[in-house]
Amino acid sequence: MGCAIEISEKPELNDPILIEGLPGIGFVANIAALHLINELKAKRFGAIVSASFQDFAVTTEGGGARSPLNELYYCKRNEGERDLIIWYGNTQALTTFGQYELCGKVLDIVQELGCRLVVSIGGFKKDEVRGVPVIYSAATDQETLKQVLDLGTKIMVGHVFGIAGLLVGLARLRSVRGFALLVDTVGMYPDANATRHALAALCKYLSLNIDLSKLDVTADETKKILDSFGLIRNLGEEKKKEEQQMRWFI
Amino acid sequence: MGCAIEISEKPELNDPILIEGLPGIGFVANIAALHLINELKAKRFGAIVSASFQDFAVTTEGGGARSPLNELYYCKRNEGERDLIIWYGNTQALTTFGQYELCGKVLDIVQELGCRLVVSIGGFKKDEVRGVPVIYSAATDQETLKQVLDLGTKIMVGHVFGIAGLLVGLARLRSVRGFALLVDTVGMYPDANATRHALAALCKYLSLNIDLSKLDVTADETKKILDSFGLIRNLGEEKKKEEQQMRWFI
Amino acid sequence: MGCAIEISEKPELNDPILIEGLPGIGFVANIAALHLINELKAKRFGAIVSASFQDFAVTTEGGGARSPLNELYYCKRNEGERDLIIWYGNTQALTTFGQYELCGKVLDIVQELGCRLVVSIGGFKKDEVRGVPVIYSAATDQETLKQVLDLGTKIMVGHVFGIAGLLVGLARLRSVRGFALLVDTVGMYPDANATRHALAALCKYLSLNIDLSKLDVTADETKKILDSFGLIRNLGEEKKKEEQQMRWFI
Amino acid sequence: MGCAIEISEKPELNDPILIEGLPGIGFVANIAALHLINELKAKRFGAIVSASFQDFAVTTEGGGARSPLNELYYCKRNEGERDLIIWYGNTQALTTFGQYELCGKVLDIVQELGCRLVVSIGGFKKDEVRGVPVIYSAATDQETLKQVLDLGTKIMVGHVFGIAGLLVGLARLRSVRGFALLVDTVGMYPDANATRHALAALCKYLSLNIDLSKLDVTADETKKILDSFGLIRNLGEEKKKEEQQMRWFI
Repeated sequence: MGCAIEISEKPELNDPILIEGLPGIGFVANIAALHLINELKAKRFGAIVSASFQDFAVTTEGGGARSPLNELYYCKRNEGERDLIIWYGNTQALTTFGQYELCGKVLDIVQELGCRLVVSIGGFKKDEVRGVPVIYSAATDQETLKQVLDLGTKIMVGHVFGIAGLLVGLARLRSVRGFALLVDTVGMYPDANATRHALAALCKYLSLNIDLSKLDVTADETKKILDSFGLIRNLGEEKKKEEQQMRWFI
Repeated sequence: MGCAIEISEKPELNDPILIEGLPGIGFVANIAALHLINELKAKRFGAIVSASFQDFAVTTEGGGARSPLNELYYCKRNEGERDLIIWYGNTQALTTFGQYELCGKVLDIVQELGCRLVVSIGGFKKDEVRGVPVIYSAATDQETLKQVLDLGTKIMVGHVFGIAGLLVGLARLRSVRGFALLVDTVGMYPDANATRHALAALCKYLSLNIDLSKLDVTADETKKILDSFGLIRNLGEEKKKEEQQMRWFI
Repeated sequence: MGCAIEISEKPELNDPILIEGLPGIGFVANIAALHLINELKAKRFGAIVSASFQDFAVTTEGGGARSPLNELYYCKRNEGERDLIIWYGNTQALTTFGQYELCGKVLDIVQELGCRLVVSIGGFKKDEVRGVPVIYSAATDQETLKQVLDLGTKIMVGHVFGIAGLLVGLARLRSVRGFALLVDTVGMYPDANATRHALAALCKYLSLNIDLSKLDVTADETKKILDSFGLIRNLGEEKKKEEQQMRWFI
Repeated sequence: MGCAIEISEKPELNDPILIEGLPGIGFVANIAALHLINELKAKRFGAIVSASFQDFAVTTEGGGARSPLNELYYCKRNEGERDLIIWYGNTQALTTFGQYELCGKVLDIVQELGCRLVVSIGGFKKDEVRGVPVIYSAATDQETLKQVLDLGTKIMVGHVFGIAGLLVGLARLRSVRGFALLVDTVGMYPDANATRHALAALCKYLSLNIDLSKLDVTADETKKILDSFGLIRNLGEEKKKEEQQMRWFI
């Protein structure tokens, strides 16, 4: 009852890998997922609304109304390559309970599609990031961890909050493998640079050729979407239109 | 378990339109819905109690006890005209979870009755409103938006909180069309003037002739009901009866 | 899942009346219910544990462990007289959601036993009560209200919070009749005097002869039980045993 | 939906006793349970994830990801001796609702395995503990209480918060016997000394020979696990690694 799921297609996938891409620190996962969807022309096959999302609609400049939403996309690859499932959305759940429920439902769906490996991407908040950001990693098992460390990542020590942590932790309890890539970021804005490095590592892991030249465009697109959902505070921004500044209850 | 629904009649309706009328800013939707029910002699066919409503009863001057409640009414119109379903009540749900559940249940019920268009009405809080209030609109799709802009409304940009936003957002995810009409109001009292303009726009859209001369009476009736539910603070009001001022726990 | 109900016996009852007696202001209902159970030698037939009760156990001086609990008792009366169901407990639910669920479950149970009339008792908090306390009343319908006013009660105007209000409000929505008796009380301690007057009015309504001489004993017993559950703050009390003063987590 | 339970084996047990060992004051139960599991080479047969646990993963120094989790172990003993079920975990539930649900599920599972006696262990917070700590006890019934007092415990008077209290209270409502052992502890760190005394009393009750010489090692192990879950604040500890000090959201 807490989650309404609509599956429009049940794709036949080859040993698919789930890539989580909800908004979080630095919006790294969110930009990465949108970029993969755009570049791979991934196909939407599922939508999830949770009663633990915020209860409002967001109107766009064109007058359209959008709700907080999670979506599932898939991308079939060449013969012999593992297919991808991308979990994209404009929000995480507001409550711990909702996070567990959401993550459990997504795992149910992708496991039914044969998924045995999940990847979450995230930002690791630093006060300052100079040069090439470090990527930290955590995994469900030693074999997977070794593969991820071979990408040039360092071992993560500490808490992984939110869906990114929950996904890898719950996957492990379901005997699904998984790892998290956590990249240094100042974290207050959609960080294209951090995303570029995280995505490069992920693509290396997946043997995936993705054009990263338009990543800034994707970061801007992400910023615009999340902005409308109130997820980014643009402190330096110029005065917005009167309508946008007023928060109101209908 | 969270919502108890009682459907006393399952009306046969012609391509019905749902009009949402719960209390909100300026109580515009609430007055409008009550006025439509009164003027159209709409018939009650459903009642909804949610565990996310407040847990009290309200006693009237006559000693009766009333609970927080939502109701569904229908109104059959002439041959060839679209029938109406009116969603009326003295409260919204207290929690995000409850709002989603309530809105989902109502959509379930009205979709089963063939509803493919939903309308929510609301107030758009302004510090001051002079002359004719502006009406803003948002819609699920461009075609519907165009129809609503043709009524003389402006495009809404920003968040639509509460049931009014949720209804249009969730409708879109169910491939049900919908729009929201949001009218300028100072918003602290039941605003008959704002309601008059919103209702005039709605009636134009519905090709509905409604006598608006008694709207002030409906606004007073609404004020009295909501007052008893503690939803309106009448700062300027004279000292009430001793019993009414004391809040107590039984 | 939220409520675990255990029904040990399904009594055959003659047009039974439900009397609600959970702790509240002045603990009037709680004392009244316990006194009725004691004097009528009512028989326990049901127990309800809700996940919305507090999560602790209370140990008694004898070392026993007690949980927050609600119970249902019945009392069969003489041929031709209406039987009684008494809803007793050491707590209400902690959340609005829990209150609705609890009240709904109890109504389900008693309606299945043929109950068509419910009574809630409560305290009406006053800063000072002199002489005979006033009893206010609210009812589901005019006929029932008239009967209750005939007992010498006054019309209640305002909110009836908690289970007492919810019970009468939800009863009305189920077409079950009901009324609330609300008696003036300072409300900070188990008020035997207020209970005596409320119970006298109730017994008059029920044509029930109850010995009220031991009511002070019942009030003391109630105080002791509720005290152990931390529901009464005995500001003036002497220093308690070391163990009782320490709140701790196991 | 709130609890996901995975039972890998349904052991045949002889009149088993449940021993609860979740983290609490002084981490007494948690150390005791882990020590029993280690020393008795108890076998894991169940895992429970609750949506009321925290929504994060914890990474270890080796890069592994762990989730908040509860586990069930069993230990078969010699012919004629009662077998043991040990309820171990790195967390209790975060909400009252979650605690009731978790405790109810565990009782469901162990009752199906024939369990008719439950034991919870806990710390009783004191400002100072000198010499041999006192053990307090509470029980579901007088017969069980007498057995526990015979171990040299004193009667507990007051509240038993959390799972330890809930378990004994809910057991009683299910006609399952049970008792709680609550040992004096300062409570801010995993207290090996308090655990030693509580475990000695428990082993005496169970006629169980357990080597307690390695209890300090178990306390250290417990400290390390709970530390990583943020359950212990080591105020006096030296500056940790940069990664550990930063809390961040992925």
